[in-house]
Amino acid sequence: MHFDLELSIDVLGRSPAVLTALLDHLEPAWVRGTEGPETFSPFDVVGHLIDGEETDWIPRARIILARGPEPRFEPYDRFRHRARNSSRSLASLLTEFSELRAGNLELLRSWRLTASELDLPGEHPALGPVTLRQLLAAWVVHDLGHLAQVARVMAKQYREEVGPWVPYLPVLTDHEVPRS
Amino acid sequence: MHFDLELSIDVLGRSPAVLTALLDHLEPAWVRGTEGPETFSPFDVVGHLIDGEETDWIPRARIILARGPEPRFEPYDRFRHRARNSSRSLASLLTEFSELRAGNLELLRSWRLTASELDLPGEHPALGPVTLRQLLAAWVVHDLGHLAQVARVMAKQYREEVGPWVPYLPVLTDHEVPRS
Repeated sequence: MHFDLELSIDVLGRSPAVLTALLDHLEPAWVRGTEGPETFSPFDVVGHLIDGEETDWIPRARIILARGPEPRFEPYDRFRHRARNSSRSLASLLTEFSELRAGNLELLRSWRLTASELDLPGEHPALGPVTLRQLLAAWVVHDLGHLAQVARVMAKQYREEVGPWVPYLPVLTDHEVPRS
Repeated sequence: MHFDLELSIDVLGRSPAVLTALLDHLEPAWVRGTEGPETFSPFDVVGHLIDGEETDWIPRARIILARGPEPRFEPYDRFRHRARNSSRSLASLLTEFSELRAGNLELLRSWRLTASELDLPGEHPALGPVTLRQLLAAWVVHDLGHLAQVARVMAKQYREEVGPWVPYLPVLTDHEVPRS
């Protein structure tokens, strides 16, 4: 599948409703569970996605579109949400994510990006040269990866409860050593 | 986290809305993509979950609750949906899944299962002795595993499009050899 801006916006626009359907008013036992130390709970994932709206995807797209001589991105703080959201409710974070995402997608649409603009370069602090098209594709994949993570982390809370079913439920043994 | 019937029903009740928010009226490029031969697309997953409603979870719970001398489950056909749904639309499958799930959860609630009923035994054709509690926990984990799968399969459709981002997006390289 080749990158398509409209199909990407369609998926990005769904994430707040998907996460709300999955998590809103769910018991803390599901929402606050993790895969172990230094891993994200579903609550953390929503905070991390908010950080992405505020500090990552659109700010990086703006750097590329500014066409400066050094279109280098700021590093992305994967743990900004921890201090930011320590006293917040999940419901308020879901609402905030929904509003930020809607605003960012409205902005993205308003740019009416052409194929040549999608080819414009940026400089990732660790990965090196990337294009605006790759940045936007990574935004989509990042959302879907964290959605998969939320489902996986929730599933693992029942790892002991399924008894002999573990080998038939591979989600329970995915990422025993966390990679994201 | 210990098994809790109400918290399990809460999660099971969300899956139709989560999958509808993620997939309804989404382009075929996202809905019909797979991870390779003999793997499920998001469309296939919805069909597989419908098969579970009709042939797996509740039918197996009934076998256990019948307290017969040999509470052995029928094997579960993981590919029943292929022939069944070949001419169906995703929208109609999402509606069907939603209705079947709602009916099955209403039935499950109506049983008002006690702790001792949750301890009743069944016989899985491959895994051996299991309890009703383990069956219901496996139902929850099975849903979440397939939700993670849908997100992963969608993400992989953009594997080539993210360029250098692959090592930062582990969902793209999960299950290179499919396990489910």
